[in-house]
Amino acid sequence: MKDKVLILGGDGYLGWPTAMNLSNLGYSVAVLDNYFKRWIFNKLGITPLIDCPNLQERANIWKGLTGNDIKVYVGDIGEQDFLFKVVKEFEPDTIIHYGEIPSAPYSMLNHNTSWETIQNNLGATLAVMWAIKTINPDIHLIKLGTMGEYGTPNIDIEEGFMEIEQSGRKDRLPFPKLPGSFYHLSKVQDSDMLYLGVRMWGLRVTDLNQGPVYGIETAESRMDKENRLMPHFHYDEFWGTVLNRFITQAVVGIPLTVYGKGGQKRGFLNIIDTLQCVRLAVQNPANKGEFRVMNQFTEIFSVNELSEKVKAAAKNLGIDVTTKNYPNPRKEAEEHYYNAKNTNLLSLGLQPNYLTEKVITEMLEIVMENKKNIRQDIILPGRAKWQ
Amino acid sequence: MKDKVLILGGDGYLGWPTAMNLSNLGYSVAVLDNYFKRWIFNKLGITPLIDCPNLQERANIWKGLTGNDIKVYVGDIGEQDFLFKVVKEFEPDTIIHYGEIPSAPYSMLNHNTSWETIQNNLGATLAVMWAIKTINPDIHLIKLGTMGEYGTPNIDIEEGFMEIEQSGRKDRLPFPKLPGSFYHLSKVQDSDMLYLGVRMWGLRVTDLNQGPVYGIETAESRMDKENRLMPHFHYDEFWGTVLNRFITQAVVGIPLTVYGKGGQKRGFLNIIDTLQCVRLAVQNPANKGEFRVMNQFTEIFSVNELSEKVKAAAKNLGIDVTTKNYPNPRKEAEEHYYNAKNTNLLSLGLQPNYLTEKVITEMLEIVMENKKNIRQDIILPGRAKWQ
Repeated sequence: MKDKVLILGGDGYLGWPTAMNLSNLGYSVAVLDNYFKRWIFNKLGITPLIDCPNLQERANIWKGLTGNDIKVYVGDIGEQDFLFKVVKEFEPDTIIHYGEIPSAPYSMLNHNTSWETIQNNLGATLAVMWAIKTINPDIHLIKLGTMGEYGTPNIDIEEGFMEIEQSGRKDRLPFPKLPGSFYHLSKVQDSDMLYLGVRMWGLRVTDLNQGPVYGIETAESRMDKENRLMPHFHYDEFWGTVLNRFITQAVVGIPLTVYGKGGQKRGFLNIIDTLQCVRLAVQNPANKGEFRVMNQFTEIFSVNELSEKVKAAAKNLGIDVTTKNYPNPRKEAEEHYYNAKNTNLLSLGLQPNYLTEKVITEMLEIVMENKKNIRQDIILPGRAKWQ
Repeated sequence: MKDKVLILGGDGYLGWPTAMNLSNLGYSVAVLDNYFKRWIFNKLGITPLIDCPNLQERANIWKGLTGNDIKVYVGDIGEQDFLFKVVKEFEPDTIIHYGEIPSAPYSMLNHNTSWETIQNNLGATLAVMWAIKTINPDIHLIKLGTMGEYGTPNIDIEEGFMEIEQSGRKDRLPFPKLPGSFYHLSKVQDSDMLYLGVRMWGLRVTDLNQGPVYGIETAESRMDKENRLMPHFHYDEFWGTVLNRFITQAVVGIPLTVYGKGGQKRGFLNIIDTLQCVRLAVQNPANKGEFRVMNQFTEIFSVNELSEKVKAAAKNLGIDVTTKNYPNPRKEAEEHYYNAKNTNLLSLGLQPNYLTEKVITEMLEIVMENKKNIRQDIILPGRAKWQ
């Protein structure tokens, strides 16, 4: 009998694909979500590329295809009574925590959205910590962070900690972070909170600092021919990651929206590598009293390098793609040193799926199949005005 | 005409003394408080050594003594409408932000108090940032942090930032922090938030990382012979700082409550030096786009060194003091390296008032005068149970 895994934020772009992936491998899986992101989408008038049935409907479809149960809990992580009841009832060995509002532009709209992001994200993580401490301190917590927590320091980005030397003395201390939005800040704040829980209570925590993810399909989503198990693929300026947006823009025939000079470098990964990384973390839990930080990306590209790759792949499909530079809404360096380490997950056995032309071509093809769903009014920058 | 200073948390141990001090120097002063700490005191059944009239009553007494107005606003910093109205109406040049729940033990009681602390402290600071950005980005914000944010690393504690060298590359980055409670964590989190505001919006912010404060009287509190302008002096296990507790215990004849081995070292300062430091920060504002961090303490002592000093001073007054070691409720190193820098405030002109026997003797004498108010049931450790 494999372990029980509870996935918080199970409705999201990564939550549901992770649930299917682990279920397919024989884990006993439960998902939890309060559909808060769907509510924000309604408020902003945003829709994903492919409509996702609710969690119970998808669990039923999955059961029909595989015979496997995925248990569904609908409610708010921050509500102690609810979360504690779920943890007591399901008795997870591992909790994967995707349950946070993940948008930098949304967090920068105004006072209310900045506070909504911070309050929601910290309240959720704090509740999970107390639930684990109170009910079963042995539960392994895997929390998704972001590479954006580090910003772009002028030294190599290490994995969570660094050995610091000063006048002949040494200590291994948390790597300094320079988040660039209230969203990224909230991820720094909850990492600090979890590390405190590890020091005080001996929790076992893995913090996965993930780069921007791209991709639409996974092995499991392909099992349903009606596309009802696809992830929430976003291409709007609030929730769409840069490559997913470029692919969609190429298909619609809009010049790729490059913010500023496009020299910004980040570490990227394919959604199927997210699943692989999270699976590796589940299979190799952190020790008791260990705060294990792993940087989760496979390749570093600048925004301009990404746009070139999309252009090249699109050309082979007969699509002529141009780019357009927009004033950068973000306060970020557009030319900078960037070298981030990512050996921890490779040491655990990660086998990267790199961003080949074939991968981009497949993404273009799926988006083309769903072209009728693309809403041009939510693609162009302008509404996600940063304060 | 001197500057206008708005003091958030004006009801507290440091808020009210700061208000009188600046008012006496000719500043136009307003205080703001929602009496949240008094409400927590009611819930916990705690009282201060000397009863403090409410802010309006104290402002009236102060007006009678000096002819100076101190404007009083009662309300919640986190309520945008209220805070924005105050900032628009009073038009401060400087905001001094003491308006946070400051108790480590309280924050560690349970899930609710940990969240209350984090939510209150971050919500308040975020609202202040938005108010300044929106109404007048030129306002100088002085926020009180704590030396407890740093923990006890095995290297010297620098003032907020450090030059980090790694394989031949260099950057000046935030000094890594290791808070030891949810309260201290909230102070790390709000420092990170303010530094983000500085980077994004060009705010001007001074972050004063203060050590435990001791002391009862200030020059201004002495002006009222009926003791109605004294600070909220606390000696209970939730809010009392270590020296204030030891003084009170000596007067009552209880063995000094040393947690663990008593080897814990911290940087301390007299309440009159807090006033001096904050005044220096007001007089020498941070530049626009500067996040200026200053470590605010004058001397480093271990808990055992403090208890020895209290014993010696008490002996001269004919009081025989003993100590008793209690199991340490905190997860903290009891023998550790500790060397923190504090040159920034000295460079601005701070002239320290050190912890002499005379200072301790005066504190003992004032507490003796108010001995009838001391409640033995709130002195001994036991209720502030750390999770």
